[in-house]
Amino acid sequence: MKLVNLRVSKYLEVLRSDAPAPGGGSVSALAGAQAMALVAMICDLTIGNAKYQASEETCKDAKTKAEALLEKFSAAFDKDTEAFYLVSNAYKMPKGTEEERAARSAAIAAGTLEATKVPFDVMEMRWEGIVLIQKIAGKTNTNAASDLGVAILNLAAGMKGAWLNVKINLPGIRDKAYAEKVLNEGQELCARCEKLAMQLFAQTEEAL
Amino acid sequence: MKLVNLRVSKYLEVLRSDAPAPGGGSVSALAGAQAMALVAMICDLTIGNAKYQASEETCKDAKTKAEALLEKFSAAFDKDTEAFYLVSNAYKMPKGTEEERAARSAAIAAGTLEATKVPFDVMEMRWEGIVLIQKIAGKTNTNAASDLGVAILNLAAGMKGAWLNVKINLPGIRDKAYAEKVLNEGQELCARCEKLAMQLFAQTEEAL
Repeated sequence: MKLVNLRVSKYLEVLRSDAPAPGGGSVSALAGAQAMALVAMICDLTIGNAKYQASEETCKDAKTKAEALLEKFSAAFDKDTEAFYLVSNAYKMPKGTEEERAARSAAIAAGTLEATKVPFDVMEMRWEGIVLIQKIAGKTNTNAASDLGVAILNLAAGMKGAWLNVKINLPGIRDKAYAEKVLNEGQELCARCEKLAMQLFAQTEEAL
Repeated sequence: MKLVNLRVSKYLEVLRSDAPAPGGGSVSALAGAQAMALVAMICDLTIGNAKYQASEETCKDAKTKAEALLEKFSAAFDKDTEAFYLVSNAYKMPKGTEEERAARSAAIAAGTLEATKVPFDVMEMRWEGIVLIQKIAGKTNTNAASDLGVAILNLAAGMKGAWLNVKINLPGIRDKAYAEKVLNEGQELCARCEKLAMQLFAQTEEAL
């Protein structure tokens, strides 16, 4: 059963339960999806409005990009939970014999790698998302200024949330060179996104 | 049709559409609901674990409170969109005669007041939410440390998002004394929450 097919009330119920997933990874992906849905909506509320004719092309382009990112975040919403189950199912594998222990340990390592890659891959998408918001900031319908602010907040929260989900898995990564690369790139990406998000948020709040 | 009864995919679709609502207000309420769902989950993952026996009572109490707040945020998720429709429907009222204009103007003012009150009321709930997180921080299952971080991020993003939704409506509030009170209290609440959230987040991230 895909999370995206659950009713919102049911999703909150399974999130609230002590089942190992969904957890913070899926919440962070959904924050990204909602941010991009808001961006597409804001573009729609701007396109065709005579007052914002100068922004028409920028918004048409941004709308297409936001919709593509929305699809990717929606997919990550489920992928993150699936990756988490790979890990938790691996921990349940038998560990009676030497061979069983080796198989279990390999499955845990493979699952941990996947559970790191899924949120790490969406971090790059989040950066694309914040750059997209930068392109439309100050050019869209001011009636939706608070929506733009909320999109920025959700994108930034999702970025930091994804990063926590990457970080918590890093100690279990066997390929230390990959873990090192992820740590460095992730930290840099996270800081860069936070800086731009704070700047765009201040600009949006000021215009309210 | 209540938003909470929509499938997540359908919710993202209506959020993405250029229909006047849902928008940033409902997104911010959902962020609060998810934060409280995560807190309840984290408490469940701690209660009954011998390693965290000292936290047992704190977590049981926090779980009950998180569940109550989760219900309130879920309700606000729909209430925010309903309030928005009060305003947008008021704008569609006829304005041919003097009487029609007066009725329309009164309906716009009443709707704007409601659209301000809904997010303002949940700001106080968000403060309760962050205080709740402060009570359990450092005492819960460290396997769920990233989930706790994501809960903090979503609560903080939801607070600032709700505040934007309050602020954008303030100029349309006829009762200037109420508007002034909301502006002062809201700003103070928002700053206080942000400060505590950043402190708790740093503490959580450090423990990862």
